[in-house]
Amino acid sequence: MDDRFHDQCGIFGIFGHPEAANLAYLGLYALQHRGQESCGIVTSDRTRLYSHKAMGLVNDVFDAGVISRLKGDVAIGHVRYSTAGGSHIRNAQPFAVDFSMGSIAVAHNGNLVNAIDVRHTLESRGSIFQSSMDTEVLVHLIATARATTLVDRIRESLNVVKGSYSLLFLTEKQIIGVRDPMGIRPMCLGRMKDSWVIASETTSLDLIDAEYVRDIEPGEMVVIDESGLQSLRFAEQQPRRHCIFEFIYFARPDSFVFGRQVYSVRKAFGRQLGREHPVDADMVISIPDSGTVAALGFGEERRIPFEMGLIRSHYVGRTFIEPQQSIRHFGVKLKLHGVRDLLKGKRVVVIDDSIVRGTTSRKIVKMIRAAGASEVHVIISSPPTVCPCFYGIDTPTSEELIASSHTVDEVCKYLTADSLGYLSVEGMHKAIGSGGEGYCDACFTGNYPIAFENQHGSRQMHLF
Amino acid sequence: MDDRFHDQCGIFGIFGHPEAANLAYLGLYALQHRGQESCGIVTSDRTRLYSHKAMGLVNDVFDAGVISRLKGDVAIGHVRYSTAGGSHIRNAQPFAVDFSMGSIAVAHNGNLVNAIDVRHTLESRGSIFQSSMDTEVLVHLIATARATTLVDRIRESLNVVKGSYSLLFLTEKQIIGVRDPMGIRPMCLGRMKDSWVIASETTSLDLIDAEYVRDIEPGEMVVIDESGLQSLRFAEQQPRRHCIFEFIYFARPDSFVFGRQVYSVRKAFGRQLGREHPVDADMVISIPDSGTVAALGFGEERRIPFEMGLIRSHYVGRTFIEPQQSIRHFGVKLKLHGVRDLLKGKRVVVIDDSIVRGTTSRKIVKMIRAAGASEVHVIISSPPTVCPCFYGIDTPTSEELIASSHTVDEVCKYLTADSLGYLSVEGMHKAIGSGGEGYCDACFTGNYPIAFENQHGSRQMHLF
Amino acid sequence: MDDRFHDQCGIFGIFGHPEAANLAYLGLYALQHRGQESCGIVTSDRTRLYSHKAMGLVNDVFDAGVISRLKGDVAIGHVRYSTAGGSHIRNAQPFAVDFSMGSIAVAHNGNLVNAIDVRHTLESRGSIFQSSMDTEVLVHLIATARATTLVDRIRESLNVVKGSYSLLFLTEKQIIGVRDPMGIRPMCLGRMKDSWVIASETTSLDLIDAEYVRDIEPGEMVVIDESGLQSLRFAEQQPRRHCIFEFIYFARPDSFVFGRQVYSVRKAFGRQLGREHPVDADMVISIPDSGTVAALGFGEERRIPFEMGLIRSHYVGRTFIEPQQSIRHFGVKLKLHGVRDLLKGKRVVVIDDSIVRGTTSRKIVKMIRAAGASEVHVIISSPPTVCPCFYGIDTPTSEELIASSHTVDEVCKYLTADSLGYLSVEGMHKAIGSGGEGYCDACFTGNYPIAFENQHGSRQMHLF
Amino acid sequence: MDDRFHDQCGIFGIFGHPEAANLAYLGLYALQHRGQESCGIVTSDRTRLYSHKAMGLVNDVFDAGVISRLKGDVAIGHVRYSTAGGSHIRNAQPFAVDFSMGSIAVAHNGNLVNAIDVRHTLESRGSIFQSSMDTEVLVHLIATARATTLVDRIRESLNVVKGSYSLLFLTEKQIIGVRDPMGIRPMCLGRMKDSWVIASETTSLDLIDAEYVRDIEPGEMVVIDESGLQSLRFAEQQPRRHCIFEFIYFARPDSFVFGRQVYSVRKAFGRQLGREHPVDADMVISIPDSGTVAALGFGEERRIPFEMGLIRSHYVGRTFIEPQQSIRHFGVKLKLHGVRDLLKGKRVVVIDDSIVRGTTSRKIVKMIRAAGASEVHVIISSPPTVCPCFYGIDTPTSEELIASSHTVDEVCKYLTADSLGYLSVEGMHKAIGSGGEGYCDACFTGNYPIAFENQHGSRQMHLF
Repeated sequence: MDDRFHDQCGIFGIFGHPEAANLAYLGLYALQHRGQESCGIVTSDRTRLYSHKAMGLVNDVFDAGVISRLKGDVAIGHVRYSTAGGSHIRNAQPFAVDFSMGSIAVAHNGNLVNAIDVRHTLESRGSIFQSSMDTEVLVHLIATARATTLVDRIRESLNVVKGSYSLLFLTEKQIIGVRDPMGIRPMCLGRMKDSWVIASETTSLDLIDAEYVRDIEPGEMVVIDESGLQSLRFAEQQPRRHCIFEFIYFARPDSFVFGRQVYSVRKAFGRQLGREHPVDADMVISIPDSGTVAALGFGEERRIPFEMGLIRSHYVGRTFIEPQQSIRHFGVKLKLHGVRDLLKGKRVVVIDDSIVRGTTSRKIVKMIRAAGASEVHVIISSPPTVCPCFYGIDTPTSEELIASSHTVDEVCKYLTADSLGYLSVEGMHKAIGSGGEGYCDACFTGNYPIAFENQHGSRQMHLF
Repeated sequence: MDDRFHDQCGIFGIFGHPEAANLAYLGLYALQHRGQESCGIVTSDRTRLYSHKAMGLVNDVFDAGVISRLKGDVAIGHVRYSTAGGSHIRNAQPFAVDFSMGSIAVAHNGNLVNAIDVRHTLESRGSIFQSSMDTEVLVHLIATARATTLVDRIRESLNVVKGSYSLLFLTEKQIIGVRDPMGIRPMCLGRMKDSWVIASETTSLDLIDAEYVRDIEPGEMVVIDESGLQSLRFAEQQPRRHCIFEFIYFARPDSFVFGRQVYSVRKAFGRQLGREHPVDADMVISIPDSGTVAALGFGEERRIPFEMGLIRSHYVGRTFIEPQQSIRHFGVKLKLHGVRDLLKGKRVVVIDDSIVRGTTSRKIVKMIRAAGASEVHVIISSPPTVCPCFYGIDTPTSEELIASSHTVDEVCKYLTADSLGYLSVEGMHKAIGSGGEGYCDACFTGNYPIAFENQHGSRQMHLF
Repeated sequence: MDDRFHDQCGIFGIFGHPEAANLAYLGLYALQHRGQESCGIVTSDRTRLYSHKAMGLVNDVFDAGVISRLKGDVAIGHVRYSTAGGSHIRNAQPFAVDFSMGSIAVAHNGNLVNAIDVRHTLESRGSIFQSSMDTEVLVHLIATARATTLVDRIRESLNVVKGSYSLLFLTEKQIIGVRDPMGIRPMCLGRMKDSWVIASETTSLDLIDAEYVRDIEPGEMVVIDESGLQSLRFAEQQPRRHCIFEFIYFARPDSFVFGRQVYSVRKAFGRQLGREHPVDADMVISIPDSGTVAALGFGEERRIPFEMGLIRSHYVGRTFIEPQQSIRHFGVKLKLHGVRDLLKGKRVVVIDDSIVRGTTSRKIVKMIRAAGASEVHVIISSPPTVCPCFYGIDTPTSEELIASSHTVDEVCKYLTADSLGYLSVEGMHKAIGSGGEGYCDACFTGNYPIAFENQHGSRQMHLF
Repeated sequence: MDDRFHDQCGIFGIFGHPEAANLAYLGLYALQHRGQESCGIVTSDRTRLYSHKAMGLVNDVFDAGVISRLKGDVAIGHVRYSTAGGSHIRNAQPFAVDFSMGSIAVAHNGNLVNAIDVRHTLESRGSIFQSSMDTEVLVHLIATARATTLVDRIRESLNVVKGSYSLLFLTEKQIIGVRDPMGIRPMCLGRMKDSWVIASETTSLDLIDAEYVRDIEPGEMVVIDESGLQSLRFAEQQPRRHCIFEFIYFARPDSFVFGRQVYSVRKAFGRQLGREHPVDADMVISIPDSGTVAALGFGEERRIPFEMGLIRSHYVGRTFIEPQQSIRHFGVKLKLHGVRDLLKGKRVVVIDDSIVRGTTSRKIVKMIRAAGASEVHVIISSPPTVCPCFYGIDTPTSEELIASSHTVDEVCKYLTADSLGYLSVEGMHKAIGSGGEGYCDACFTGNYPIAFENQHGSRQMHLF
């Protein structure tokens, strides 16, 4: 899917390590695939907070000088996705403020579906807003809550908001980690000698040699301070609704998410696809890198050799100067290029993780054919994406989702492919082994686990 | 005085001009001497606000691309002074937020002496703070006020705060200009064809060919919107207390401030000094450029020729790499250099606007002597600075003000000068023609016009 | 091998296209894998030359403004490799000067082995040098040649130098392309409607929709000007000695180099490895991306499933801030990470393209084992690298090449691998189908096709 | 004159000081007024050279990291003027190359009038050129000279070139300073404990606490190496022709140039103007800062009070965004602004150093009148500039010099001034006390001391 969709966010926290800022920087680097627009780290030396945020990649935003100014042994960090409209440093996280109990910073992965309503209520009570992030709503709720302790105030506030959230709060003295009652977004707990670590994905733990302990439970709040880690529940047990798209596209294949290694699940998707779509072909190729693991599973199941039929450029930047002289498949060729000798005269299956608008897929099909393939069969390692996500994934509206308004045959024709096959919803659940339980698959089925109102078409809160 | 003191702030607003952002940029450029740390402009196209702020000089921060993105025919802007601690983009102005009535931006010149107390109250009611500026307090007061119109909410809020303030508010539809009841900081109104202009100093109006109309009155609130300009009073008449330091150092000599051209007042200071300190000398020189006009007045009165005895470098940057090999008067010589042939064997009077810590003055005296002067007489065009300012000037604490703890003779000895003369407080008022009325001279007399509590030593509000 | 070795260079030229600079920029982008240190383009509008060079990647160095200033319909460009010592803008190419016949620019891929001797001779005759590039020698030879035409001067100069070279010269009126008599470095000719294109690899032609015509012949000089393309020979027929390392590592898999698609050759290497090293294993993985194609061939031959056992980060920057707290395999883990569930308890074959010093390979072996693999077998898709290259590849000296001083068993032990297998020299030639003829394999055999003197240990010419 | 003309260059050298690079940086900073386009330093550690050059101001181009990489105890530096066409990093100095005797760097202030002819000869003998600087010619002459020692080669080369030159050569072991036989450009020798210093102006020596020893003599070559300083003559005695414009505009007032303090000469110009133009006026003002000293002299002579009637902005950058709405005197008002109260109804004499095209002067006259002046008399502290300079000053061609084609009355009318007075040529010499001997005044008289050919209209050598 690769840069057609935009990513979501990644969060990281560490408590009780003398090199907290440096480890947060590395932890965020390992989560860079979850958000490339902006990043930030806030630290505490148990007395006050230190903050640095900027637009850009982790490795560009932080250098040794910045890291050294982020003092203390406690840190939280955030990487944020990139969208056209809301792309502004005001919206970079962690979001840090002073309030009656001192300073607080928050890093959020997810989306609060009733943020606009809550914001209107808060504004009518005198709150002022400096960003268009749903996350700011949460901080105001905490600041205006009636409870006397921070933990109770957070609990009180979380009862007001609806949506998906994996959250890290940092104060002068503690880190508080929270995961929504359905566990929509991932969040795991690790241990590094005497330090506690919390991260969106286990690949963060691996990079810094932290040991994976367990996932934060849906509805759980962990409070980490000088006296250690304390686990609380802030909400009643609810059916789990893990975001199934983490398996399909978001998470790194080497991460364990919702208790499973992503690589294994993607491989199973590929094998299931092989069973559902017994295409006869000379080779299976993938859109690198997001389609590769499923392609390996498909080839294994179908006993069709896997080949690297599309070579990916490692130097793709943001913008390119296109000549007026038109170049065929310009945008796609800057990233991918077909291997002629390999593809010439061959019947080719190409695996991608999903189709959003279909425009890029169409260009790729044409490029593979231009490289000499005699047949091009497109196999997608997820069901048709028919509904937008309101829980943290920046999908387009239904109108823009090609599968929302077109049949599979129509999409196939648009792509100019010889055939098109999607993973079935049942097949997807079967591959995961979930029996249809425990996952949010709303983008494929429209079965939204959390009700929402007035959200359609107004996903961005107003801020000049 | 030149970079020993730090400056304060400058504000500019324009309503109803198709090139509002461009004119605001020029208006701020003309106010650059009032603040070099950060600057910002917020515009309105009558529907929404557009904002750009950054650390740095006006001409570096804004370019044609930025200006073109600041849409609309209404704009306010701000230049901010530089201090060590509070130097952060968070504290750049205009400060812009969303609240229950829409969007609002504010630009502030001055200082609210009870900001910390008000902030504590606000925090206890649930407000969160993202900056350490006193100005943020004001926006929260407006957001939480009970009145139903913005004008009434501003009025209500101004009754809570104490201190000095020249303020510009911008909403989607209007500009509101406010000046504190004592008129401590300057603020003037201009006209540019069909547009209204408000600025800290008239030099801003001159640059953009706007016509000076009048000063905004102390205690006046002007509301400018589609229906024109409306003048209101939000506070009862109080004795005026214009900041006398605007004449001594802050304002540009070509500006009219408090009804007088600064140049004329400085010249009168110099003549008065000539009467008060009839030093016998071969020439009078100045610390360029802040001491030059007074030096001309002194020379005129004493019939001593004025000379450019110290040559100023026009390429002074922020930091210099000093060799380990010590260079005499290093810091001073990077900025100023004595003219040997001129000074050799001469009795020299050197005029400066004020003495803060005395360290730079001492270096300059030694440098003049090293250039060959036989006598060096220091004459200061203001009385001894003995008390800190709480109304918007970033002076050091009393302990650091050399005149606060030393007699004139002691200071003279420290400077290694042959003699030292200050302007008398009476002479200062006489030169202005004020008879001691209408001006705040607290930095010289300790007569603070506005009471304050707990301010000593805690002028910076906490924010990580 | 991936950033252990450094790359060499890439060149691109186009004659007679109104968007010459823009196409050169895209052509160089497609050659970015051949050099990431610096890049440059020089154009001609048939009257004068225009130049832009800088340190950095093609897509960062060139923007629309720069492209528009590079006027004319003729252009040559260059991407340069990165080394520690010689990394300086002075050494960026194309190298452009004025001389008696007008202006000339040159872009060079290769290395002149007698450059130091020639330089000394030139200096003794009065030439001055502004870079430490061997290429500058060539320009001086042309400027001081006795012949009266540029073509003859180039011919005369090429008879003086020894070594490998694919060269593009640009004057106000013409492009001249030259390839050394043994054809060590690749160079191909393409056609784009009425324009001629010359490039290091065919992937450049593909990106801009140019048609591949043929390779420039060893010993051939093509002169392209207003009157068309003219092919000349400047040297007698010599046995071909194509650089075999282009197949192993340098060239992009989708390029045709020396008449073969690189992908196919690498696949054949893998199959040959399968025959030479019939290791029993559960899976074959690769160091992505350089080892992947060979790994597919190996798996195919051995009927062992290929897996993406190492996940590559796409956000690797130049430098990382390492915490003092040691992290195992720090450098390697920033780029690659093992998939635990997949590798756990498995016998793993890992394919890499070559081993230089062995330090990185050792870290990777340990990382795979840490991820749970029960056995780690290292298979290299080239013979042991035992000799340095003097023809354009920046290999370390013999002392640093681990295979130069250690047996295969010793290297295996150092890597902590269960077994280690290299491709045999015969197997390599067999896979190519060359029968040992036509290729330079000196880095594996020491059979240097061109004699050289005094080169050891002094590969960098002196320039402050 | 101030940024209507462009400046020329400044050079600095130091031998035998452990902090050579740092002192060169400070020495160049003190010469910044002589060139703001680019700057550079080359150092030697007695074994090899180290170089850093860039576009921009000294204090922006050099930081502690750069200084620390410029190793050694010997350094030369250069600041270069800014012109539109030749503005390119290729033309930054010192110009450093390798040649048969090792490495050499050169810094040049002046202009070689026969550079094009010499360059053609050199090119015909095989030299290649990488810049369009006349200075590069000199290095080629040295490299191709027949003499066996560097000193003799330099001597031989200087016999070939004609023009003005103050030169510093740096090799691994020595600094050689050279001044042309007529002493057109200034150059002085200083001493700093055990180190020798050479600089364009004495203000450089003052800043670093070096002691002024003497000027380098016209036709003198000083060779400084381990064995000390040796003075040689490379040319016969010729009549001195010091550039008189150094007194009028270039040099800093605090410098001693050609044996006189610039301040004193400018003051004498002003007094002479008072005698030549006994205008009746209420005050004399200046275009700051270049006209100020002459204005003081004029006021003294005429007993008219000097005032700072024009206030100068200290924040002028390179470019400003001008609104479409026209602003009167836009460009001038960004830099200067009239003091209304002071000028209102007054008869004003305004002193400037020279008039080039007259366009800026015209704007200033109008601005002063707009500020209320009843009469504006323009007095210029130099004779009419009627001829271009070929010895290092970037004046426009004769056609662009308003005084070249217009009478004084016509210029006065163009300026819209009430009267216009220039300094007479005789008066200028009288003020200096030279009796018309010893100075080049060709820009005022056309008496060029050095013949030249084919120079008109082709002052820039070709380089793409």
